[in-house]
Amino acid sequence: MSADTVISLNLATTREVWGFAEAVDGCLKAGITAISPWRDQIAAIGLDEAARIVKENKLQVTGVCRGGMFPAETAEGRQKAIDDNHRAIDEAAALNADCLVLVVGGLPGSSKDIAGARQMVTEGIAAMLPHAKASGVKIAIEPLHPMYAADRACVNTIDQALDICETLGETVGVAIDVYHVWWDPYLARAIARAGRMKRIFAHHICDWLVPTTDMLLDRGMMGDGVIDLKGIRAMIEAAGFDGPQEVEIFSKDNWWKRPGDEVLAVIKERVATVC
Amino acid sequence: MSADTVISLNLATTREVWGFAEAVDGCLKAGITAISPWRDQIAAIGLDEAARIVKENKLQVTGVCRGGMFPAETAEGRQKAIDDNHRAIDEAAALNADCLVLVVGGLPGSSKDIAGARQMVTEGIAAMLPHAKASGVKIAIEPLHPMYAADRACVNTIDQALDICETLGETVGVAIDVYHVWWDPYLARAIARAGRMKRIFAHHICDWLVPTTDMLLDRGMMGDGVIDLKGIRAMIEAAGFDGPQEVEIFSKDNWWKRPGDEVLAVIKERVATVC
Repeated sequence: MSADTVISLNLATTREVWGFAEAVDGCLKAGITAISPWRDQIAAIGLDEAARIVKENKLQVTGVCRGGMFPAETAEGRQKAIDDNHRAIDEAAALNADCLVLVVGGLPGSSKDIAGARQMVTEGIAAMLPHAKASGVKIAIEPLHPMYAADRACVNTIDQALDICETLGETVGVAIDVYHVWWDPYLARAIARAGRMKRIFAHHICDWLVPTTDMLLDRGMMGDGVIDLKGIRAMIEAAGFDGPQEVEIFSKDNWWKRPGDEVLAVIKERVATVC
Repeated sequence: MSADTVISLNLATTREVWGFAEAVDGCLKAGITAISPWRDQIAAIGLDEAARIVKENKLQVTGVCRGGMFPAETAEGRQKAIDDNHRAIDEAAALNADCLVLVVGGLPGSSKDIAGARQMVTEGIAAMLPHAKASGVKIAIEPLHPMYAADRACVNTIDQALDICETLGETVGVAIDVYHVWWDPYLARAIARAGRMKRIFAHHICDWLVPTTDMLLDRGMMGDGVIDLKGIRAMIEAAGFDGPQEVEIFSKDNWWKRPGDEVLAVIKERVATVC
């Protein structure tokens, strides 16, 4: 990593052991001054208190997780999603977050029309954009691994996300999570394109384990899997993004069971050596 | 489907209940005259006997599964893979198969160098190609779903496979399995490109279940999942391929436990209605 790379803790990583306030305490003790909270964690402590903690401790909030989930079978369902995204924008604004991260949603109901779902995503982001702009909140589309295309996110590559960004303007960019994109044969080209467009808003890290025993909750600690983390970071820095590396590990049988302080110590060691 | 679409049974679909000869008997009884066997199934009955059965019953062999698995840590390992692919070519030739299907292999050993693994794949196919050409065997690269990039196949999209095909000549094409590619945001464009290159050598079908409970062995029967099978078939036919739809279902907890005759009856009904 670059000598000055900053670590951000995505609070999903310690969600089973720490709430918002405990996670901030743990981070500060470990010398980590950037976080990315989830909305349920913000709601649990209250938005005002979360904002107070962020301000008082001069924390960088690298993202709020998450908006999105646009596709729905009915117009009412889609409007409900947009309303929820407006609330997410307000939360991101209150925390002065670098961006609101979007997990865009998959196929609605029993639909087999993935092109239609993708259209709903573009329209949903377009609908939330005026409020986001008025609030000064940047929107980061997070392409998710293709194994989540049906049920979580029908935006599955950086290039596809950038195609959407091009139609929506400069405040819509991408959150690049290595877990979701490491396999992409056109990754280097896509990251360079994102850089030229100035649309890299976040960089998330973890690792892909072999074998992977659970499609959602078996992500690895950096260094324990097969992802070339240094290589991807170099691409991202060459593309002009030198913001924090945000550590987001969903790991129900391993890291989620460990004490938060221990997890942070391992993260710091791994970021220093393999990222 | 087109009125004249032919079904091929990939013998993995009935592998727990039928060997090569039993599967052929079951297919003929069901009016199915195309198959795609796996090499272990050929070995179990013997190549000569398998070839005799194919010839005697005038079966179309839509593919032999599988060659590939090129990446290895040592030159000796890579040569061993090429030697094995030479034997696979001989088997495909003996069965007069439409193609030898390649599952190209993933990262060798503890490597994190996916670009390097991909280079080994291209070099491995190039090395086996003279023998394939001399034997009249076409080679079909099967792009596998990105969730297999680490441990099974580092070729993960049709476009990526076609890039390799372009460097190797007209006898190297693609096997398009809907399970692996349905999510691709550029699928229509990629299939059209494959058609212009005249490189669609096989079309495999099954379905993507929601939820998917096992990354390898929980594929669905056509119609039970979210894939737009008719839509993809239309793209493939528009691209010039009107060969059989080859049914390949890995399903350890459902279809693999049912009697073969029942599985074939459901396949026939589903191909007639949803494919």
